Amino acid sequence: MYIMSPTVTMSTNSYEHLLPPSWSAQVAAWLAEDTPSFDYGGYVVGEAQREAFLFGKGTQTAVLAGRPFFTEVFAQLGCEVEWHMQEGETFEPVKHVATVRGKARHLLLGERVALNMLARCSGIATKSKRIKDLAVGFGYKGIIAGTRKTTPGKLPPQTAGSAHDPSGFRLVEKYGMIVGGIDPHRHDLSSMIMLKDNHIWSSGSITAAIRQARAVGGFTLMLDVEVGSEAEADEAIEAGADIIMLDNIEGEQLVNVARNLKEKWEGKRKFLLETSGNITEANLGERAVNDIDILSTSVVHQSVQHIDFSLKIQMPK
Amino acid sequence: MYIMSPTVTMSTNSYEHLLPPSWSAQVAAWLAEDTPSFDYGGYVVGEAQREAFLFGKGTQTAVLAGRPFFTEVFAQLGCEVEWHMQEGETFEPVKHVATVRGKARHLLLGERVALNMLARCSGIATKSKRIKDLAVGFGYKGIIAGTRKTTPGKLPPQTAGSAHDPSGFRLVEKYGMIVGGIDPHRHDLSSMIMLKDNHIWSSGSITAAIRQARAVGGFTLMLDVEVGSEAEADEAIEAGADIIMLDNIEGEQLVNVARNLKEKWEGKRKFLLETSGNITEANLGERAVNDIDILSTSVVHQSVQHIDFSLKIQMPK
Amino acid sequence: MYIMSPTVTMSTNSYEHLLPPSWSAQVAAWLAEDTPSFDYGGYVVGEAQREAFLFGKGTQTAVLAGRPFFTEVFAQLGCEVEWHMQEGETFEPVKHVATVRGKARHLLLGERVALNMLARCSGIATKSKRIKDLAVGFGYKGIIAGTRKTTPGKLPPQTAGSAHDPSGFRLVEKYGMIVGGIDPHRHDLSSMIMLKDNHIWSSGSITAAIRQARAVGGFTLMLDVEVGSEAEADEAIEAGADIIMLDNIEGEQLVNVARNLKEKWEGKRKFLLETSGNITEANLGERAVNDIDILSTSVVHQSVQHIDFSLKIQMPK
Amino acid sequence: MYIMSPTVTMSTNSYEHLLPPSWSAQVAAWLAEDTPSFDYGGYVVGEAQREAFLFGKGTQTAVLAGRPFFTEVFAQLGCEVEWHMQEGETFEPVKHVATVRGKARHLLLGERVALNMLARCSGIATKSKRIKDLAVGFGYKGIIAGTRKTTPGKLPPQTAGSAHDPSGFRLVEKYGMIVGGIDPHRHDLSSMIMLKDNHIWSSGSITAAIRQARAVGGFTLMLDVEVGSEAEADEAIEAGADIIMLDNIEGEQLVNVARNLKEKWEGKRKFLLETSGNITEANLGERAVNDIDILSTSVVHQSVQHIDFSLKIQMPK
Amino acid sequence: MYIMSPTVTMSTNSYEHLLPPSWSAQVAAWLAEDTPSFDYGGYVVGEAQREAFLFGKGTQTAVLAGRPFFTEVFAQLGCEVEWHMQEGETFEPVKHVATVRGKARHLLLGERVALNMLARCSGIATKSKRIKDLAVGFGYKGIIAGTRKTTPGKLPPQTAGSAHDPSGFRLVEKYGMIVGGIDPHRHDLSSMIMLKDNHIWSSGSITAAIRQARAVGGFTLMLDVEVGSEAEADEAIEAGADIIMLDNIEGEQLVNVARNLKEKWEGKRKFLLETSGNITEANLGERAVNDIDILSTSVVHQSVQHIDFSLKIQMPK
Amino acid sequence: MYIMSPTVTMSTNSYEHLLPPSWSAQVAAWLAEDTPSFDYGGYVVGEAQREAFLFGKGTQTAVLAGRPFFTEVFAQLGCEVEWHMQEGETFEPVKHVATVRGKARHLLLGERVALNMLARCSGIATKSKRIKDLAVGFGYKGIIAGTRKTTPGKLPPQTAGSAHDPSGFRLVEKYGMIVGGIDPHRHDLSSMIMLKDNHIWSSGSITAAIRQARAVGGFTLMLDVEVGSEAEADEAIEAGADIIMLDNIEGEQLVNVARNLKEKWEGKRKFLLETSGNITEANLGERAVNDIDILSTSVVHQSVQHIDFSLKIQMPK
Repeated sequence: MYIMSPTVTMSTNSYEHLLPPSWSAQVAAWLAEDTPSFDYGGYVVGEAQREAFLFGKGTQTAVLAGRPFFTEVFAQLGCEVEWHMQEGETFEPVKHVATVRGKARHLLLGERVALNMLARCSGIATKSKRIKDLAVGFGYKGIIAGTRKTTPGKLPPQTAGSAHDPSGFRLVEKYGMIVGGIDPHRHDLSSMIMLKDNHIWSSGSITAAIRQARAVGGFTLMLDVEVGSEAEADEAIEAGADIIMLDNIEGEQLVNVARNLKEKWEGKRKFLLETSGNITEANLGERAVNDIDILSTSVVHQSVQHIDFSLKIQMPK
Repeated sequence: MYIMSPTVTMSTNSYEHLLPPSWSAQVAAWLAEDTPSFDYGGYVVGEAQREAFLFGKGTQTAVLAGRPFFTEVFAQLGCEVEWHMQEGETFEPVKHVATVRGKARHLLLGERVALNMLARCSGIATKSKRIKDLAVGFGYKGIIAGTRKTTPGKLPPQTAGSAHDPSGFRLVEKYGMIVGGIDPHRHDLSSMIMLKDNHIWSSGSITAAIRQARAVGGFTLMLDVEVGSEAEADEAIEAGADIIMLDNIEGEQLVNVARNLKEKWEGKRKFLLETSGNITEANLGERAVNDIDILSTSVVHQSVQHIDFSLKIQMPK
Repeated sequence: MYIMSPTVTMSTNSYEHLLPPSWSAQVAAWLAEDTPSFDYGGYVVGEAQREAFLFGKGTQTAVLAGRPFFTEVFAQLGCEVEWHMQEGETFEPVKHVATVRGKARHLLLGERVALNMLARCSGIATKSKRIKDLAVGFGYKGIIAGTRKTTPGKLPPQTAGSAHDPSGFRLVEKYGMIVGGIDPHRHDLSSMIMLKDNHIWSSGSITAAIRQARAVGGFTLMLDVEVGSEAEADEAIEAGADIIMLDNIEGEQLVNVARNLKEKWEGKRKFLLETSGNITEANLGERAVNDIDILSTSVVHQSVQHIDFSLKIQMPK
Repeated sequence: MYIMSPTVTMSTNSYEHLLPPSWSAQVAAWLAEDTPSFDYGGYVVGEAQREAFLFGKGTQTAVLAGRPFFTEVFAQLGCEVEWHMQEGETFEPVKHVATVRGKARHLLLGERVALNMLARCSGIATKSKRIKDLAVGFGYKGIIAGTRKTTPGKLPPQTAGSAHDPSGFRLVEKYGMIVGGIDPHRHDLSSMIMLKDNHIWSSGSITAAIRQARAVGGFTLMLDVEVGSEAEADEAIEAGADIIMLDNIEGEQLVNVARNLKEKWEGKRKFLLETSGNITEANLGERAVNDIDILSTSVVHQSVQHIDFSLKIQMPK
Repeated sequence: MYIMSPTVTMSTNSYEHLLPPSWSAQVAAWLAEDTPSFDYGGYVVGEAQREAFLFGKGTQTAVLAGRPFFTEVFAQLGCEVEWHMQEGETFEPVKHVATVRGKARHLLLGERVALNMLARCSGIATKSKRIKDLAVGFGYKGIIAGTRKTTPGKLPPQTAGSAHDPSGFRLVEKYGMIVGGIDPHRHDLSSMIMLKDNHIWSSGSITAAIRQARAVGGFTLMLDVEVGSEAEADEAIEAGADIIMLDNIEGEQLVNVARNLKEKWEGKRKFLLETSGNITEANLGERAVNDIDILSTSVVHQSVQHIDFSLKIQMPK
Repeated sequence: MYIMSPTVTMSTNSYEHLLPPSWSAQVAAWLAEDTPSFDYGGYVVGEAQREAFLFGKGTQTAVLAGRPFFTEVFAQLGCEVEWHMQEGETFEPVKHVATVRGKARHLLLGERVALNMLARCSGIATKSKRIKDLAVGFGYKGIIAGTRKTTPGKLPPQTAGSAHDPSGFRLVEKYGMIVGGIDPHRHDLSSMIMLKDNHIWSSGSITAAIRQARAVGGFTLMLDVEVGSEAEADEAIEAGADIIMLDNIEGEQLVNVARNLKEKWEGKRKFLLETSGNITEANLGERAVNDIDILSTSVVHQSVQHIDFSLKIQMPK
């Protein structure tokens, strides 16, 4: 079995330590998208000091995710956020999640941008946690992972007091998966090598494709190879693949192939077995087989129900 | 009634004329997000000429939206796209939607980025059309509109042969609404003025808030005022608001207030009545009242089911 | 008559509330333009603390406009600006307008950039106020508006402590118009729809062009149609145009057409009448006819006399 | 006398060879400023092929300047420009200057942006030529130069097929000066060293300031020193200044100081004498003294009358 | 032993398939750095068609690396490059490496930028090959790898016909290592996890640090742990580290520890052993021990002797 | 002789006054290059307060250069740097150069980026000082200058509290030359005009080329002309060149030509003589001839040995 304990307990407020200084540039760009020229409403509402309550709403139990992004939206507008919950914590609606204090026009400039992000990020964390808990309930000890099927949105490289050029909205979505307890899977094409049928056709064989990939990718990158049969899996494992993605092998056959591979290579090679595709809450029980190390699925982050939040500016007394 | 004919027929392939030259920069940024440094797989797969089929999949009738963005992803990679369907056209899965031709490594570099966009854009168009068709079925003659609850993702200003600095992923999402037949509502804070309770508190009265907004916003921007009673609506209309958003007025009361306002101001002022919030396919029948000119709702673009597409590179013969 | 009171009094120091956080990036870019690599003079002059006086000079009564941009230039250089006048206030030369305090090299780095902006912005506000006052003197109750004939200069999307990606130097020029009391007219092609002869040729009729524009632009954007005769104006009004631009209709004929349209559509449609072109201080009396709601003219911001300012660093004692 | 022949004849169409590949990014940014999100008019007008005539209008003899920028605006929109005049050539209004061919929506997207630039660039070239011709008429053999009092507008670094990151709108304005026959003076703080009173106070003496500046600026940069008396000029020349700016020395005194300095240092040091400030067409005769090598003035580029151009799309037959 | 064959033969001209479309933006930015405003020399030299020869010079056998970057510099300037050698090929000076054809001013605009890159990239490839050949000569079968000690130089995200936002000059330097036959090691902090003493102090133990890292980094990233003793190595291997960096273990002790670890964990865990620091051509023989899988060293890319190239424009006949 | 005293003493900590506000954007971009998405190590190490010692290592006497860049890296990460040495000061290894204090994850995020810069910048300053001291030892009184053969790396224009858009890594390298006591030579193609054989072929003669260059470059830019004989030098001097680069004239002939030119033009023209190419520590004695004003050479900044620095985080007590 792979070394990854589902019982490790991390303090929830350190997820933001994953974020490099550059991510705050995203937040600035989001604000710019929403007010490209004048803020006529800001002229009307002015700069009276106000307090606003962030409420978690909707009808379901939800996971809070996106605190550092939300805080940064308002920090860039000179407002302060006091959180009443930890990142990754579960809440029942209606819940008073945070209080934001600042000038009226600044609260309104940040409101929609901050909520748009929080609704999506928490939605992903909520769905991720639900799928993971379900799998654990079925006795699954492996990894549930997301995919690269994220919303496009590369940000420009920029600077703030301390911030620059991260990946785009994918950063927020992958972050939501992590907060929800899911493995975010590879971040982009440059951060893990995946070889599929086309790579193998071009190289002539699985072995040749793996050798070529290692020749340029080196030892620092994991190498994942998609195979369609046990024989192909054997060739990939022999040639040094780190991860074997079993494609188009399903049901009973999948269980058998996985068990055979694990037994056959025991003590000879280290590799992980991965399966993907068409995972739902309904069929998760059948898919969560312990000889499979990784179940990767976009169900935790694509078409996910957002979590409804609202920001209510309190009436001045 | 407002002048907007639901029966105007536009050729579907001209939606891309809405896009200014700058939008293609977004596409370049999406590609950059997905391959920040080396493309190891590209090294393995090389530049053999290949043909790939784009299939519309899933289980539901869907609307195709996002053609110009998809075409641009591959154009920037030197590939050509031949479309077998019009933008905005409905299809049943599985459908061969387009054929893409280019070098193997270029097809793979564009695949995920193009599909991520198309899945979301078509999902929004599909949901938009469904809601609109439903409303028309209930005899509604007004406007169904989206909201500003879109995915953050401002793009950098850049240049290609012809492209630069549009708004972010919001552009794609608003475009999907338009293709689906829905009014995209205001694009950002700078493109229409909306006055809410805070603006009114700050100014002392609805009339004062409207005058201040006009003093800087001028005559070229629509002015939408959120009111909580018929009396407030009367004040806003008197003061020259273009649109009256009836907030927290529901059910029977909403119908009455709307009818009263229309009758009272007939021939004296031109204004539109808008309502928003908590619209679902289930309650649309009750909400689609013809004295209300505009139903605005995020249900057509937030938490929307994506449309599943795949791009299959054809095996070399 | 249109609802816009020329007598509304706003406190002059709130114009800066129109500016979204992103505008300060412009200022940073202006500084970068002026010192692309080394600042040799900065090395010589060093960081002694200095005080500099900003003087309004020249030979005419002038309006101060551009305070927030000027303050930001020096704030980015660690200097402080103390203003001795309000934004929008009128002054006679020579006037001590502000005092700037900071390190010698920083004062010199900001000097030229800040003055270049202030000279242009105040020039526009001064001319805008003169034209508006003149029109009011002729008894005109309508709107004087600027145009889109501004200096090109789009800025990059960037971030500072709180700033990002506004429109370019046009933002400064439109801001100057607002401070001078003029309507800034549409900001860009995306923020109001104007249909001219070409759009009408392409669509077959004014009615068709308006319907097509509404189908994609929706209800949130004003629709301005350029017409060449009373009959065309009637068609545009009937089809729901918000603003009618009377093109190539002049003198006595203009007055008659405007009066006819106002009388004919009284109580049936709400619309504004606009005229444009070749307005000067000399002919303003004839053009400022009250049946015309809007006089739009580039005379308030193009080829405008700049206001001469200088920044004198005080000799160390 | 300085080596700069006013009679050298250059073919006018090579001014564009001054522009590095990066300048075309400016043009893309200008287009982006004018259409930040959707182009609703473009949707209406579509892509019919059209021909448009560029006319030089107004009431004065004018110099055409800005051809490469104008051509690039339309090239980025897929349109072609056929010029009927050379860059730098003089014309009388009304003049058919060029013909632009392309799709209707592209012609309209470029129209305002291209005209805004051309009006300003040609205005500067026209004024520059007028001042220079006037000075030559007075028998002046020296250099007329502009200043750094230009419109702020730094552009982002970007790429097109061949273009990137130049200085901002200053590039256009300095280019207009060159086309008009004027010396553009220093481009920015990094491209020539100017030492003024503050630099000298900080260093203790003119000699010390010059030595410090040379120590870091090196031999590749010209060094201009502002002095207030003949004695200070002597010290600066002795210490190796390349250019002496005579500040606050006027009228008869200016002529005497200049003659003295020229005679005194004949054959010992090479330097240029410069004067600046308050030059007008009216007083140019007195200021254009041949012992002064350089007259620098913002009168050729600040508050300059723009040249009126219009672009008329021809009615389809 | 690790699966990486030093005998795999790749066609040298496919290294450029490693480069994503975005890298060409770097080239545009390099050009912009070198000509920020006007190109005065370009005005003088004009656009006569010219041919230039690229010569490899200096005094040593060298490896050519950087072809795609060199070609792109000139492609962006409208010039064509004909190569007379393959990427990665060895040459003796003086060698005619390529011929460039284009307009005189374009050849001169690209010359210095292209040579600056080529000199550095080829220098790294040359040194990389020399070190690798030396190690192979000593019978070493493991991996020689570079480091992250590269020249800072992040590029902006931009677009060309097809290009955007890669990592900075590091991309060129890592590419040079690959062409020279060396493993480029991890690209940045986000593409492999390295845990050092500080991470372990913070977590309390090696095991805890590894568990925390896996909890967020997931299965797709290699995990490298720096240890100072055999006992620490055992703990790291037990806890699932992929790579063990033996720090401050040298000479005879290093050989013993490595052999012990390999024997002890044979068939139980898969891991690689790495050593780093102070490798020179002189001591390589002692360091290249086959129980060590990876020798990582900055000697192949930092302070490396550049390869001298020159571009000679041929005299027009 | 040229006016540049090698004995002027400047306080070393004012070199940073050469840097315009925009340079700090470079630092932000460097940080972004090194952590494009998540910082997994940061999650593990957390935010405990730590102290780190910067040590100058290696085996040679070295010059410290790059303090402001190093300080800025850590300032952007919220860390403070206390320097124990002045910029430009010489030190013997091992030397405790500075102490950095901040949170553990921030120290680690900045470490590699800051050291990569410091190693290169100090390497250039060290080599520059060595070459200059050697020349002074040979009795040379002229200028030692660098070249434009720097590492490409243009940065994006951006903003921080105070920073924007400088030239790229060239800024750091030229800065290192200045700190080492060397003239940085021209910064880019826009900041001095150099005319070579191609410019002269295109213009027909040296005189024509100089006149054309002056016509557009004006009086503010130095003009350097490359000549191959004494006769050509005479023509260039006559035509007003500021600097004469003697190309392909070597050894005894070089000395003679230089002396002849100096004597012949004494009191008639001011010009500097420059020679370049193939300068080494070995042959410097022969090249450092006092009739030559400038020796320009890339030996001080290309392929220069870096200075080894390390940053040791102190074990928590």
